[in-house]
Amino acid sequence: MGIIGGTGPEGRGLAGRLAAAGVPVMVGSRTIERAREAVERIRTGDAALPLHPASNDAVIDACDVVFLAVPFAAASEIATTQAARFRAGTVVIDLTVPLTFVGGAPVLQPVAEGSAAEHLRARLPAAVRVAAGLKTIPAAMLARLDTALDCDEFVCGDSPEARAVAIEALGRIPHLRLLDAGGLEAARTLEGMTLLAVALNKRYRVRTARFRVVGV
Amino acid sequence: MGIIGGTGPEGRGLAGRLAAAGVPVMVGSRTIERAREAVERIRTGDAALPLHPASNDAVIDACDVVFLAVPFAAASEIATTQAARFRAGTVVIDLTVPLTFVGGAPVLQPVAEGSAAEHLRARLPAAVRVAAGLKTIPAAMLARLDTALDCDEFVCGDSPEARAVAIEALGRIPHLRLLDAGGLEAARTLEGMTLLAVALNKRYRVRTARFRVVGV
Repeated sequence: MGIIGGTGPEGRGLAGRLAAAGVPVMVGSRTIERAREAVERIRTGDAALPLHPASNDAVIDACDVVFLAVPFAAASEIATTQAARFRAGTVVIDLTVPLTFVGGAPVLQPVAEGSAAEHLRARLPAAVRVAAGLKTIPAAMLARLDTALDCDEFVCGDSPEARAVAIEALGRIPHLRLLDAGGLEAARTLEGMTLLAVALNKRYRVRTARFRVVGV
Repeated sequence: MGIIGGTGPEGRGLAGRLAAAGVPVMVGSRTIERAREAVERIRTGDAALPLHPASNDAVIDACDVVFLAVPFAAASEIATTQAARFRAGTVVIDLTVPLTFVGGAPVLQPVAEGSAAEHLRARLPAAVRVAAGLKTIPAAMLARLDTALDCDEFVCGDSPEARAVAIEALGRIPHLRLLDAGGLEAARTLEGMTLLAVALNKRYRVRTARFRVVGV
């Protein structure tokens, strides 16, 4: 599997947590040099971690499971301009949240399709399957590789197959329970939960808010 | 404090949990007879519970804190036709979720204002303050009075005062932590989280899904 946007906090957090569990990960960036820098930063000296720097294009070409961990605007551009590059059967797992700040306050940028995940689904080829995951865990939390997640996360997707692939892939991360939230439209709520977590972080002066479902 | 719609599962659950904590509650219904029946049903033999049957109108007239626990369409009608009845300074706490079922699947009915809470805010007088709470706990769970909630809930509101009143009022329920989720627009996410809880209940064949925030 591979990550488009492996250099940001979300991408580094995902790559580091998967690699620590022994999962080989292609860490993509716009240039191979930046990808190499990101891999060195994630490694922090552990040369055994199965991390492989690559261009974003190489990630699309090589991987059956492609995580989108770039900002939403960049993900939209990639889904539009690079749509033909994605091979049939690829499962794209969208991590983006259209979060922006207005006067210092976090808000969700309105998306005509209802959510970032549905926006990307509308732009990628029909033979590419789309799931969403890791939406509700703020990037700063995901990037704290020394802190176990110890929470639940939600996967939604355009098909049971896409959800199963995403749950299996993300399920490799230790101390994280994956729950199946159903169709891709559930991303509307999951993206809102990121905003809620960010607001709780601000109000309660922490950086670690995340969710657990009780009773399931 | 009092409940408009104390006869449904959500109203009964709220009334029973508050009264068990020693909080006097006016249990409202369209008719005093139905309110009396609801109170008897909640009591299940415990005559000491401080529950007082009343008409919905009497709840509005008498209470400084009024919970709206009727279905969303009925809440909208009350906020529209009874707006003048609410006294200045009343804090209305909205519990409604515009949940509906399409082909057996739960969906949120679109609300022009973005959420049920914002819809009601737009119809109630400016001197009435509006908060939202207990949105994410499905009514069937709230109504299981023999089961401790043992979870977190989120309050949002049109002012810090409205949120403080709602957090104090709902904070009387045992085994429930209240978190301040900020402005009333957060209700968009909280209402979506009900839908998510209902979907998880269905998928995992339970009736008890609810949320806890880790790291706060």
